[in-house]
Amino acid sequence: MATESRRDTYTPQTLLEVAVGVFIERGYDGTSMEHLSRAAGISKSSIYHHVRGKEELLRRAVSHALDGLFEVLEEPVALNGPAIDRLEHVARRTTEVLIDRLPYVTLLLRVRGNTDAERWALERRREFDHRVAELLREAVADGDLRADVDVRLATRLLFGMVNSIAEWYRPGHDSAIPAGRMADAVVATAFAGLRAAGSRGAADGEG
Amino acid sequence: MATESRRDTYTPQTLLEVAVGVFIERGYDGTSMEHLSRAAGISKSSIYHHVRGKEELLRRAVSHALDGLFEVLEEPVALNGPAIDRLEHVARRTTEVLIDRLPYVTLLLRVRGNTDAERWALERRREFDHRVAELLREAVADGDLRADVDVRLATRLLFGMVNSIAEWYRPGHDSAIPAGRMADAVVATAFAGLRAAGSRGAADGEG
Repeated sequence: MATESRRDTYTPQTLLEVAVGVFIERGYDGTSMEHLSRAAGISKSSIYHHVRGKEELLRRAVSHALDGLFEVLEEPVALNGPAIDRLEHVARRTTEVLIDRLPYVTLLLRVRGNTDAERWALERRREFDHRVAELLREAVADGDLRADVDVRLATRLLFGMVNSIAEWYRPGHDSAIPAGRMADAVVATAFAGLRAAGSRGAADGEG
Repeated sequence: MATESRRDTYTPQTLLEVAVGVFIERGYDGTSMEHLSRAAGISKSSIYHHVRGKEELLRRAVSHALDGLFEVLEEPVALNGPAIDRLEHVARRTTEVLIDRLPYVTLLLRVRGNTDAERWALERRREFDHRVAELLREAVADGDLRADVDVRLATRLLFGMVNSIAEWYRPGHDSAIPAGRMADAVVATAFAGLRAAGSRGAADGEG
């Protein structure tokens, strides 16, 4: 059978890539094993040969995103030195991970929490946010971060900016901005601000 | 019939509010007139008494969001004075409109463009973005905005930050931040940056 004959060319990794695309397009709730089977061009039983079901695919996919994000927190530059520098490093590298693992992070950002796998992903996202908020708190205590913006709100606005990139970034597109340059822009905007140094009113802005 | 007896209490406005909630919950594509009828507690024919169909409800809903956003561009402070100040005003007021008209703007942000009404909404969003990008361009020309972040990218990061508020803001919640304070935080973060004035490394960040 045509569909069976393709089974051997499928690895857990290629199946995962196809599943992530379908989850993003249809939503996780709206995706059936039938949809996955058609998108992958292999039978449902071939899929069950690799995974127990769609929840396992979701868990593997969001794990790939979460592992990338948590690894950033363990990088030497994120662990040593003033909190403000560690925080900038985390913002920079998080942007790069988002671009490097775009479909996986996009899926993670859309998880809403109806199944165990989704609730687990939300819990890990919260844990990541808490660890970043802790860095912001330290940087405020050091006097290196403005104290007039609430730490939780600043964390949300910072990652709101980073995560919004997933809404429009198209890798491989002519005008796709390289990950490093995107990370520079995020850090420049969020930490130094869009205002030029010495622009009129800049002192008010920083007061 | 029970459902018919409630018809007179429905106005186009209350029907619109219910429809926006259903569109956000189920997605516009996933919403049928039957879903709207059940959520509103009135018959489908009662809904057709008010509107031609769900596309008209979508158009009215996103119009409410778009009108609020475009009105900001016509406010005196957005029309007079240095571009940098007009831009900050637009960022501030856009944040306030997002919070004041939260469900409508949330729906607008989720529009993907499968129907005429959706394509029209996307076109108007693009027009809004172009007008804001024009302000950024003027502010760069004035030397008031950093020149090392591409104008289109800066526009996207700025509104990425603003729009992300719709993902988590819960009005009426104990910890809901008032619209004005949220707008202050957005302007402080995006224009002056999170770094405290005089923090170590601030000069690099602004270089």
